[in-house]
Amino acid sequence: MGSIDYNPWLEEYKSPFGAIAEGGFARFAIRVADPGIDRVFLSIGREGAVNHRIQMDLHEDGRYQYEFFFNDGKGLYFYHFELEYISTNQQRFTRYYCWSGTNGHGMLVEQPEAINNYQVTCYGKAEVPPKWYREAIVYQIFPDRFYNGNPDGSINSPKPNTFLYGTTEDTPLYVKDSEGEILRWDFYGGNFAGIRAKIPYLKELGVNAIYLNPIFEARSNHRYDTADYLKVDGILGTEAEFIDLMTELHQEGFHVILDGVFSHVGRQSRYFNYDGSYGENVGAYQNIQSRYFPWFTFTTYPTDYRSWWGVKDLPEVDKENEDFQQFIYGENGVLSKWNRLGVDGWRLDVADELPDGFIAGIRQNLESFKNKVLLGEVWEDASNKISYDQRRQYILGDHLHGVMNYPLRTATIALLMEQCSPEDVALAFLRLQENYPREVFYNSLNNIGTHDTERILTELNGNKDKLALAFGLLVLFPGVPCVYYGDEAGLTGGKDPDNRKFFPWELIDEVCYQACQKWLTLRKEQPLLQDGDFALLFTEKLFGIIRYDETAFLLAILNPLDVDVVVNGGDFASYRHLPLSPELLEELLDGQFIMANHSFVIKGKF
Amino acid sequence: MGSIDYNPWLEEYKSPFGAIAEGGFARFAIRVADPGIDRVFLSIGREGAVNHRIQMDLHEDGRYQYEFFFNDGKGLYFYHFELEYISTNQQRFTRYYCWSGTNGHGMLVEQPEAINNYQVTCYGKAEVPPKWYREAIVYQIFPDRFYNGNPDGSINSPKPNTFLYGTTEDTPLYVKDSEGEILRWDFYGGNFAGIRAKIPYLKELGVNAIYLNPIFEARSNHRYDTADYLKVDGILGTEAEFIDLMTELHQEGFHVILDGVFSHVGRQSRYFNYDGSYGENVGAYQNIQSRYFPWFTFTTYPTDYRSWWGVKDLPEVDKENEDFQQFIYGENGVLSKWNRLGVDGWRLDVADELPDGFIAGIRQNLESFKNKVLLGEVWEDASNKISYDQRRQYILGDHLHGVMNYPLRTATIALLMEQCSPEDVALAFLRLQENYPREVFYNSLNNIGTHDTERILTELNGNKDKLALAFGLLVLFPGVPCVYYGDEAGLTGGKDPDNRKFFPWELIDEVCYQACQKWLTLRKEQPLLQDGDFALLFTEKLFGIIRYDETAFLLAILNPLDVDVVVNGGDFASYRHLPLSPELLEELLDGQFIMANHSFVIKGKF
Repeated sequence: MGSIDYNPWLEEYKSPFGAIAEGGFARFAIRVADPGIDRVFLSIGREGAVNHRIQMDLHEDGRYQYEFFFNDGKGLYFYHFELEYISTNQQRFTRYYCWSGTNGHGMLVEQPEAINNYQVTCYGKAEVPPKWYREAIVYQIFPDRFYNGNPDGSINSPKPNTFLYGTTEDTPLYVKDSEGEILRWDFYGGNFAGIRAKIPYLKELGVNAIYLNPIFEARSNHRYDTADYLKVDGILGTEAEFIDLMTELHQEGFHVILDGVFSHVGRQSRYFNYDGSYGENVGAYQNIQSRYFPWFTFTTYPTDYRSWWGVKDLPEVDKENEDFQQFIYGENGVLSKWNRLGVDGWRLDVADELPDGFIAGIRQNLESFKNKVLLGEVWEDASNKISYDQRRQYILGDHLHGVMNYPLRTATIALLMEQCSPEDVALAFLRLQENYPREVFYNSLNNIGTHDTERILTELNGNKDKLALAFGLLVLFPGVPCVYYGDEAGLTGGKDPDNRKFFPWELIDEVCYQACQKWLTLRKEQPLLQDGDFALLFTEKLFGIIRYDETAFLLAILNPLDVDVVVNGGDFASYRHLPLSPELLEELLDGQFIMANHSFVIKGKF
Repeated sequence: MGSIDYNPWLEEYKSPFGAIAEGGFARFAIRVADPGIDRVFLSIGREGAVNHRIQMDLHEDGRYQYEFFFNDGKGLYFYHFELEYISTNQQRFTRYYCWSGTNGHGMLVEQPEAINNYQVTCYGKAEVPPKWYREAIVYQIFPDRFYNGNPDGSINSPKPNTFLYGTTEDTPLYVKDSEGEILRWDFYGGNFAGIRAKIPYLKELGVNAIYLNPIFEARSNHRYDTADYLKVDGILGTEAEFIDLMTELHQEGFHVILDGVFSHVGRQSRYFNYDGSYGENVGAYQNIQSRYFPWFTFTTYPTDYRSWWGVKDLPEVDKENEDFQQFIYGENGVLSKWNRLGVDGWRLDVADELPDGFIAGIRQNLESFKNKVLLGEVWEDASNKISYDQRRQYILGDHLHGVMNYPLRTATIALLMEQCSPEDVALAFLRLQENYPREVFYNSLNNIGTHDTERILTELNGNKDKLALAFGLLVLFPGVPCVYYGDEAGLTGGKDPDNRKFFPWELIDEVCYQACQKWLTLRKEQPLLQDGDFALLFTEKLFGIIRYDETAFLLAILNPLDVDVVVNGGDFASYRHLPLSPELLEELLDGQFIMANHSFVIKGKF
């Protein structure tokens, strides 16, 4: 058989690149150099809708082409090509050209069952975020672990039967019984006043937005077990102190994103009230007549009930319950209360557990305010995520503005720990870029570590040179960088709770701090890093990122190895056509040159 | 065979009652009404010395008698009687009359192997204590759990990697790993300033001495793992604060007993220095050249070493090591330092683990100061205690003034929980009274609960009426009463750590408090309760205590039952002759009368 080629990452095969707006079109072209092929069909359809099998036109350049309009509604469209052959004995048969799964190129398969479709994400709406968000450099704070701003060092209203750490240098420890259940929650005593006191530090570091892990009344130190959505947790301070903090942050040019935990509540919440601490007849567990009883799903009342991943401490809420929906996103609901107090955005915890309609309801609430951003906790490619057998609508419009970018963290570690070739890292990123609508891609909340992962410095085996490179990648990739508190200070730590140490105010590592500050400054000063287009290149050993627009560009080359590398400008390859001419590229990279180990080189015209 | 009788609790058989001073004598008399008996011998000897077999004289009253002089040195003398019979066919044979083990009366046995000797304690010296001690009403304070006297509620120098309780109402909890090893020590933050602040409370309650659980630098909250004998623990305050506390206590008429923990040290002490926290080359574990190396017994250096009951956290010290001895009780040693700062007495932790010579050395040190008292932690009858195959010299003179009276606690619970008849309780007490030299008996540090036992109120199933009776028994028995902090406030709790809750300053139980205060007041105002002689009486249901001297007496009758009891004065029995005439007794008890449930009736002439 002759040669057949298709690659949606190259303009000559699919144009435009990537996701398509609803009602827009893309031109598909497949190169077929086989005289045995008689007809070529594009087989395409929106998931869940009618499939189209359209005969493609053979053009003069030898490519079969078709311009397809995405008129069947937003969603994922899957496609492949069907090639009709006439054999030498005049028998007709069909072969299928579909995605190879390795890079952009396809493969030919004989059986329909073997088809691996290409994906096109068709979105309903370009998720242009509030202006402030795209300009944001976010700092994630786990409130108990940042700073205690009380002048006498006292801790606000410690909770009954909890432990406070003897010193802020103590190593975090879960106090569990032999079954693994928490016996006592542990607190360091960070609070609102502490964040407020450290605004000068945050400004100096170069951040201008804060993502706060949960702050509402709860039993635990992480507060993902909400006890009262309408109150701040007393150990963090009063509502007045929260308002003071918000006011001062806004005065200083900051924006604030809260953690919205709506999939479940704490067992010892006002709503469930397992231990009766909210009153004798209050809550679903205590009283079947409770307003909150219908929020939960009891299999045997009151002992057995649905809970988050079977954790009985976290009873699951029925998000289809209208009363709960109104409570959360109704006009006078939870979101409205905090939005009116100036909250600028929300990060939805475990978005996979929230039905699309619930997320849309939240988004509607935020749209009724101005300039609020909605982000989701999704760990994988959010375009084609399936949860509970449902293909998710997260990024197709009117749901999330963007999602947390854990793939960036994975790629960063893989690259810097030499677990993946630069080419493979580029491949992973290109697929995300292709599948996400551009605005969504640029709304990603980039991270190299959060409260749910091991500390980046620990992942990098304590190598501070690599940490500096990781901060670079965090800033150079499209999306909004988010620094997990303490990463800039050289904090280390394995899995939870080790990744939630108290901020080492007396032992800030200067090397780490300056590396972080330098990259954040670049991000702030260089508009290309906010909005510039994005391309990747690589050699066998080096990795490169280009951010560019019509008039300027920035080229960053990374040597992730611990040895110097000799490289020729001409060695760089890419999965897509580079926005720079080969001549410019060669000029930029200046023939043969040496890159020092663990280094970035930045060149460009900006 | 005819009747034979002997009972050392009755004057006609043995006089004087109880222990005998070295060189003193006792008259033994045995009643033998059997014509077959030809000769009677007293077989007596000091343990470890020659035995005497002395033919007794038959007196006119039908008793065989002998006055034996205790001239073989102090110690335990054991004796029985040997009866030589002539049978009807003129054959001679011997029978042995010895202690029955049940009450004072003896039994006849055929074989020497079956002999169960009577004991006479022969002491070298009457352990007259400092005057203040016999007048003391002691309050035991577990320092971390009493009161935080810092005005802002802050905790002095919390230790690294420890937990502080969120509130003082929290329930104590050990944080252990799956092996049962402590992972973090837990603190409430009680301190010297707190004790000082509560002196008015203590005076109001009616105590005038304090026994402090350990206060020296250590890792744990109980501080039985001494880290530095020459420093107070920073979390309790500075040495200056300790001195201030001592000064104020003395000004207010208090005396202070410290806990001396000399059997072992903490693994993380200056002396052992397991974790190197006292310096790289300091301590036996770090450096075989260390001054402290010879204090310990390593089986494999440095990993295996002798430790207290195999607890590796508590390396055992070799008390035979002269350097350690001098360090503890030398002229400029540990004891001298604290004695010079005004400490009035010491309670020796785990006295069983301290060789007699070591205890004697401590006593010598205290004798070189004035008015210091030395008490020992011994749980059983201290007169005949054997530890490590050694009969102990505790109370024979020049060692301890007295011991902690745990048998009183046992008897109190047994009586009030109706686990023992009043008669059996009297029996247990009579044996202690018999075996202890009088001064030692009166030096007992009486308790109904300590840091090592369940709370008395918990033992009494939370019954406050019974608690009031227990305070009564604590005060009525010979010895110095010691109230475990919080017992007077109604604190409950099972075994350690539940018996070490923080003092409930906001929830002092008035009923408990007033019961305690009432009895302590009686003890303070009534000299008979300090020095008065002591006798017990009982009926089937009631228990009575008489304290008396030549001119006065106090009779306390207890109904431990939860029903009223009708009783005749004449029903009372006793193991010894009562110091009151039957007529007086009947007059006092006024014929038939009714005793309310759970009540004491006090009568007398005082």
